[in-house]
Amino acid sequence: MDGPNPDFDRAVRAAVLTMPAARHLGFDITLLEPGLAEITQPHREELTQHDGFLQGGVLGSLADFAAGSAAATLLPVGWVTMTIDFTVKILAPARGSVVARGRVVKPGRTTTVAAADVVAVDGADEAFCATALVTLRNLKVG
Amino acid sequence: MDGPNPDFDRAVRAAVLTMPAARHLGFDITLLEPGLAEITQPHREELTQHDGFLQGGVLGSLADFAAGSAAATLLPVGWVTMTIDFTVKILAPARGSVVARGRVVKPGRTTTVAAADVVAVDGADEAFCATALVTLRNLKVG
Amino acid sequence: MDGPNPDFDRAVRAAVLTMPAARHLGFDITLLEPGLAEITQPHREELTQHDGFLQGGVLGSLADFAAGSAAATLLPVGWVTMTIDFTVKILAPARGSVVARGRVVKPGRTTTVAAADVVAVDGADEAFCATALVTLRNLKVG
Amino acid sequence: MDGPNPDFDRAVRAAVLTMPAARHLGFDITLLEPGLAEITQPHREELTQHDGFLQGGVLGSLADFAAGSAAATLLPVGWVTMTIDFTVKILAPARGSVVARGRVVKPGRTTTVAAADVVAVDGADEAFCATALVTLRNLKVG
Repeated sequence: MDGPNPDFDRAVRAAVLTMPAARHLGFDITLLEPGLAEITQPHREELTQHDGFLQGGVLGSLADFAAGSAAATLLPVGWVTMTIDFTVKILAPARGSVVARGRVVKPGRTTTVAAADVVAVDGADEAFCATALVTLRNLKVG
Repeated sequence: MDGPNPDFDRAVRAAVLTMPAARHLGFDITLLEPGLAEITQPHREELTQHDGFLQGGVLGSLADFAAGSAAATLLPVGWVTMTIDFTVKILAPARGSVVARGRVVKPGRTTTVAAADVVAVDGADEAFCATALVTLRNLKVG
Repeated sequence: MDGPNPDFDRAVRAAVLTMPAARHLGFDITLLEPGLAEITQPHREELTQHDGFLQGGVLGSLADFAAGSAAATLLPVGWVTMTIDFTVKILAPARGSVVARGRVVKPGRTTTVAAADVVAVDGADEAFCATALVTLRNLKVG
Repeated sequence: MDGPNPDFDRAVRAAVLTMPAARHLGFDITLLEPGLAEITQPHREELTQHDGFLQGGVLGSLADFAAGSAAATLLPVGWVTMTIDFTVKILAPARGSVVARGRVVKPGRTTTVAAADVVAVDGADEAFCATALVTLRNLKVG
């Protein structure tokens, strides 16, 4: 996959990481390639439910951000994505820091379908904790 | 619908509102009846994307909390719900404070299916901005 | 809700009931109003899994047809809907004839979001057996 | 992945292919490995919408059957799967014969999460036309 914006890395970081809701979670974008994105969320106690596990809605938000960032890598300059639908399956409790990996499943002119997997990371071990499918609308804003 | 715990109001509030992730969003539970829950999220700039609209993952989290709270009203003492799946359709941009209304679609012994609608509230006007279906596992913890 | 095609009843029946896949299931459209559709599927042994219960994919197809028919009632002349996403929750085994009731959740110019509930009918009794959310693209074909 | 039933191939074929709803579609199981299943649906005019494309509900049913068959490969003797939730994204129109490939995402004692991709096959070419996530309950029947 290859998108029309060679400067996608800068564009996606600028669009995502300046969002107040992204800063409120506190993740970083740790990989961007055409059609792919990885975000890393350090452990923060304020994102947990009880007993230190990440709350399900937080896992869903991270999956949505990873899928949306992956989708955005393939867009022309001045376009953004807007989620219209996301489905998240919680597979296991997530403790500690997590990584959400998004990938474009099907690019399109007006709509993009993407997926994301979320893993909890403990040293070299990864525990698979959520998977998601996301449909996004591509919007010209610039 | 009627659950086996006459003290469900206190139990659900205690389980939900003490969660760090719930306090991080900052909503309140504004209605609880058997099979129903309403949560009210005041406007907070840190939950928005750009231009003041609530970020999609936040809408999903609120829908999930409302659906889970509704499901929890029907559980026996010492049981909690855990989301295993949620699907959210974003219907319109949401600005200002929002209300998420959860309702049990199908109660069950081991699994509950619930739904939630999210509206943005501006005085007496409500704008329908998201709808969700949620599957939850019922877990005995007490 | 009110659509721009006063002749929607004839248009939706013509679009849906002439589909080979609709005839293969063998349902009828038993109600159409702006934003609403009901389809009735008589019991047929060839749609069951084992023990006479309707197979889950069949319940999903009926929900999709009901949601799509409801969406189509609000379209202009010469437009059709095309499902881009559907989520189905199977709530209980369905035996005998079933009725799928679709309703538009959010109409739109390019996209419609609809829902459907499926009940198994036994005389005056109805058993709620599936619920679905469906996103459809509105397409001009005429 | 490896399941507790060494005779899974025979068991899954017997459970799936004897279903009236499976015979009504007319597909065959063309691969079964632990955690994986592939079903092949030859073109049949009665499964199409208009213009010869497969109807969306049919794509959903094939994805559900593929995911369920993959899940069933990991079950003990005398257990079956029952779909409780499926989400299907239709990615492109499907013409001709299609192959649905299911894989287990997360096995579990009481619940399995699986995924499926559906491709339309034209000689050596494959066109990706649908992707699905499916949650299944594992049930002891034998």
